[in-house]
Amino acid sequence: MTTESALKQYLTACQQRVNAALEQQLPMETVQPVRLHQAMRYATLNGGKRIRPMLVYAAGAALGTAPERLDGPACAVELIHAYSLIHDDLPAMDDDDLRRGRPTCHKAFDEATAILAGDALQTLAFKVLCRDDWTPVEAPVRVQMIEALAHASGSRGMAGGQALDLAAIGRQIDLAQLENMHIHKTGALIHASVKLGCLATPAVKPEQTRQLEHYANCIGLAFQVQDDILDVEGDTETLGKTQGKDEANGKPTYPSLIGLKGAKELASNLRQDALDSLANLDERADPLRWLADYIVSRDA
Amino acid sequence: MTTESALKQYLTACQQRVNAALEQQLPMETVQPVRLHQAMRYATLNGGKRIRPMLVYAAGAALGTAPERLDGPACAVELIHAYSLIHDDLPAMDDDDLRRGRPTCHKAFDEATAILAGDALQTLAFKVLCRDDWTPVEAPVRVQMIEALAHASGSRGMAGGQALDLAAIGRQIDLAQLENMHIHKTGALIHASVKLGCLATPAVKPEQTRQLEHYANCIGLAFQVQDDILDVEGDTETLGKTQGKDEANGKPTYPSLIGLKGAKELASNLRQDALDSLANLDERADPLRWLADYIVSRDA
Repeated sequence: MTTESALKQYLTACQQRVNAALEQQLPMETVQPVRLHQAMRYATLNGGKRIRPMLVYAAGAALGTAPERLDGPACAVELIHAYSLIHDDLPAMDDDDLRRGRPTCHKAFDEATAILAGDALQTLAFKVLCRDDWTPVEAPVRVQMIEALAHASGSRGMAGGQALDLAAIGRQIDLAQLENMHIHKTGALIHASVKLGCLATPAVKPEQTRQLEHYANCIGLAFQVQDDILDVEGDTETLGKTQGKDEANGKPTYPSLIGLKGAKELASNLRQDALDSLANLDERADPLRWLADYIVSRDA
Repeated sequence: MTTESALKQYLTACQQRVNAALEQQLPMETVQPVRLHQAMRYATLNGGKRIRPMLVYAAGAALGTAPERLDGPACAVELIHAYSLIHDDLPAMDDDDLRRGRPTCHKAFDEATAILAGDALQTLAFKVLCRDDWTPVEAPVRVQMIEALAHASGSRGMAGGQALDLAAIGRQIDLAQLENMHIHKTGALIHASVKLGCLATPAVKPEQTRQLEHYANCIGLAFQVQDDILDVEGDTETLGKTQGKDEANGKPTYPSLIGLKGAKELASNLRQDALDSLANLDERADPLRWLADYIVSRDA
């Protein structure tokens, strides 16, 4: 079996697991307010790749933790991700019409419903971590998980990264500023995904957590560098979003700052750094290794 | 001392206490992303009445709980309230230019920053409840608090209420539908404020929690009925927001459904019901009694 097909098989299992859990956690469309619940489900149950949930499962599995302890955290990071995409796509933000080949939430519904759906999905993420039936962990662990997720999502994490991103449009920024933006905008939640997997593991050693967090930082940045590369090289149909959008919006990207060749080298170095940080982990960490390979070779 | 001046004195003490705590919890304006943090502080440290924090303190005090256990929950409910006001004021929602006599957040900054500031304030509310220095309670209590706040804020609480409110504009709805909307939009967070005060109290009896929750439901609805009355009778300068706005927007109100006299009778009955539910509590519950009086007599 190739690395790619091994990853595909593992990712499919994670997708099925997290989708089944999300299906249960999201309010039903028959419950009032119906339109809001429709929008929440539309924006979440959308065929997303579920990379962040997979990171929760894979980090936990690398440390020997049962998936039952990881379902809640896996859903929580995806709910935060889903909320952020709805709000990022709004006209006042990135003004995107297309998301994974379908109309964005505010296009399929309306702006007010999209804003509220995002708000309510954020709330649901924290609720999922509170409930013993969805996240069967000890109360102190639960609190650590909620704090880690809040830290990664807030003004010094993901939301702050989006603010830095918007502030950078049409302005000249350097490589350090670009990296800082990505560390917050996408890196923080990827970091949190791995951290939640570690927190769910009672016997985890501090050194293991540090190594896995370093892995997360590397692949988080690699993911973004590859996104920038795809914005130049990809095509709209495969991507499921508009190719060349960043360039057209005057957004700074890795290719625009260090060239396409430089960006590809950077992605490759980050992949190797990610793999090196898993050196002390056995074959149960293989899905994390496959993912590091995939991130820099994907075409969508 | 009159009831009104007694309340004013108590409320001022609560305001000073919660404002000092919020001042510390909100990221400084010198920290990146500066504009986002400015917007978060602008929208929160705005001279708000702090009714919800006062409810946390007053419910806890009625049960003999020290204010140190209540600062975190008091801040958390206000942060959720502040986030909801930012998003409710957006052009795609209620499209308000004025809030407490100042430009609304998206007017003072911009729409994208306002959306993100609201998002990050919601996150901060949950973070405040996680941290032992801000909310020094036992981990299982902390989890109950976070779950109660999430339940009150989400699609089956406040955010759902705003969705019902938007759906009702320009449509004929009956009294039951209006009440259902308010129970979610404003009632849920007022209910949660009192509930957090109860949860912070280790020795609280279930019967006391039930009575205080009933009190909260009564004053929550009374608050909204009085808001509708003020939208008809108040003036823009005293209110700090545009008088007659609801009527101009075709929003259903209590006066429009049961007349001004009917609305005043309803508010008065709800006040009495609220006071009756405090019958078994001693004088430490007086601030809650003063508040019930104030809610139906206020002019702003």
